[in-house]
Amino acid sequence: MAVKYELVKECSKTGARAGRLHTPHGVFDTPIFMPVGTQATVKSISPHELMDMGAGIILSNTYHLFLRPGDDLVKEAGGLHKFMNWDRGILTDSGGFQVFSLGALRKITEEGVTFRSHIDGSKQFLSPEVATKVQMNLGADIIMAFDECVPYPADHDYARKSTERTTRWAKRCKDTLTRQDQALFGIVQGGMHKDLRTMSVRDLVELDFPGYAVGGLSVGEPKDLMYEILEYTVCQLPKDKPRYLMGVGTPDCLVEGVMHGIDMFDCVFPTRVARNGTAMTWKGRLVAKNAEYARDFRPIDSDCGCYACQNFSRAYIRHLLKTDEIFGLRLMTIHNLYFLLDFMRKMRQAIIEEHFPEFRSEFLANYQR
Amino acid sequence: MAVKYELVKECSKTGARAGRLHTPHGVFDTPIFMPVGTQATVKSISPHELMDMGAGIILSNTYHLFLRPGDDLVKEAGGLHKFMNWDRGILTDSGGFQVFSLGALRKITEEGVTFRSHIDGSKQFLSPEVATKVQMNLGADIIMAFDECVPYPADHDYARKSTERTTRWAKRCKDTLTRQDQALFGIVQGGMHKDLRTMSVRDLVELDFPGYAVGGLSVGEPKDLMYEILEYTVCQLPKDKPRYLMGVGTPDCLVEGVMHGIDMFDCVFPTRVARNGTAMTWKGRLVAKNAEYARDFRPIDSDCGCYACQNFSRAYIRHLLKTDEIFGLRLMTIHNLYFLLDFMRKMRQAIIEEHFPEFRSEFLANYQR
Repeated sequence: MAVKYELVKECSKTGARAGRLHTPHGVFDTPIFMPVGTQATVKSISPHELMDMGAGIILSNTYHLFLRPGDDLVKEAGGLHKFMNWDRGILTDSGGFQVFSLGALRKITEEGVTFRSHIDGSKQFLSPEVATKVQMNLGADIIMAFDECVPYPADHDYARKSTERTTRWAKRCKDTLTRQDQALFGIVQGGMHKDLRTMSVRDLVELDFPGYAVGGLSVGEPKDLMYEILEYTVCQLPKDKPRYLMGVGTPDCLVEGVMHGIDMFDCVFPTRVARNGTAMTWKGRLVAKNAEYARDFRPIDSDCGCYACQNFSRAYIRHLLKTDEIFGLRLMTIHNLYFLLDFMRKMRQAIIEEHFPEFRSEFLANYQR
Repeated sequence: MAVKYELVKECSKTGARAGRLHTPHGVFDTPIFMPVGTQATVKSISPHELMDMGAGIILSNTYHLFLRPGDDLVKEAGGLHKFMNWDRGILTDSGGFQVFSLGALRKITEEGVTFRSHIDGSKQFLSPEVATKVQMNLGADIIMAFDECVPYPADHDYARKSTERTTRWAKRCKDTLTRQDQALFGIVQGGMHKDLRTMSVRDLVELDFPGYAVGGLSVGEPKDLMYEILEYTVCQLPKDKPRYLMGVGTPDCLVEGVMHGIDMFDCVFPTRVARNGTAMTWKGRLVAKNAEYARDFRPIDSDCGCYACQNFSRAYIRHLLKTDEIFGLRLMTIHNLYFLLDFMRKMRQAIIEEHFPEFRSEFLANYQR
């Protein structure tokens, strides 16, 4: 099996757990946040900067790489790790989320999805088989089954049909995968319907994947509902496999996800808001462009160990952002990713030291959303 | 005196010379190329990346910093070195070149130049006194006299009046400067008129500056004429002072400038063309976006020691450029600056080893403009 989950410690009062994931490109501690490198690059920063901040695994997007530069080219380069010079873990999504998001530009059948490229309008096709083959060419350590992320809201009938198809597609992905060095994760769907979540978990677990993602959350539903469905779903998943909550990356959601037993997260949130000039801190967001920081010569966060905070002031970073200088985006991106990776490390430490519930309460009390 | 030029070796067959410039922020070897960091940042890259590639001194622009974030703010930050976290040499220009370039937006009197900010249209004023005080606030190791760069073409009468005013202004700059840790360079003007160049050199040398720049070249004149005026001018400058050719940075111009005895150069060329996707090599330009490099898994230059060439392929960099990824601009910028800094180091070595003329011939024979 390409990846192996090692359980290190369970929280005695919540579902939180600390572990380790063994992959063909190294072992990383969980719970972990995966920075998003959509187009084979985490926007604005280098793989060495990612290593310096302690990133163990990143996510890259199949949809984008399939269209540009093409998975055949990446394969010819020796795979995604070699192409982008990143020797640690990589997870690729299946492209399903992106093609379903294309709305009028795509047509779904049992076979797969025909769609128009957002780049040049060309006709393209992705299916469980194609998405898996593309991901085999890319060569990530963890690849994802081709699924439909059930939109919110979705009635029971739609959600059931979609979820059943996602399971059939997951089986076809599994049957397509031939590489022994790649782990295919199944994705639990079911919308906000608990019986369908149970059905989805049961059917996927029967197919025996090396890991499971919880999909279809953080898609517009109220947070309370999200946490309810998450808790309901996660506790049915096997304990000996890694659990991945897709597309979630705000600190409050991360702490709740960890509490319910999630091991892996990804989200464009930290890198996207960084480029908009918003820094993440333990107390909430800091809008670095604000006039109040013009002559503030302290770092973004005096307690932060990141390259930006160790070397540059709020005043300098604000100047860079106000003058549209790329280095400003870099520093903000480095800070936000470091913050989140550090946040995950501290949560893990709290789990191991048996005070995760206190850590969570204290964090939520100080954090302004 | 804030800076001291040390002559290490003179070429016996040309005007080329190898030296060292001692500044309050370190000693650097000459001839040297100064990367341009217009807004207190060399576009897209970090001060640590500049150090890694061996940059000893950078240039920053007074006009831009005067308007944003303001020289008073930079002073409050502890000066430009501290503001941008760069502990090696800095040279600031006077802002003269930029305000004169504003055309209809500026008005010149003997006192100085009134102009409209290109950012918000606000009315601003720069003069020899103001430009010097601004540069004192910025705190660069080398600061430049406020001058008019005589445009090309300019008749003898215009060039004479302008050059005489530049000399009067240079005196006022000198009288304004009170910081002992800053060296003020005079700027030789005179257009393409040899008698005016002689006059300018004579009058400035009489004021006894710690270094001299040759201005008003590479402003649209034919290259042969530029080299002719350059040679004519440089050989009149004192040997014990550093000589700086402003705004020149293509490899063929650099080798000719060095041959005529120039020690310092600056230009936005390497960084600007990098961001347009053009890499500089010993054989000429390489347009990295070209389709022929799509599956070219070699580095930009196999013999290059830069971070980009040591870690990434043409195919990857092309992918980044085609998808508008910032990391592509960074890698191109790093490569081009490394190339030019390395080019200068190799020229210096050739001077010391007494084969500069051979180096020059060989370079020009292989280099496609």
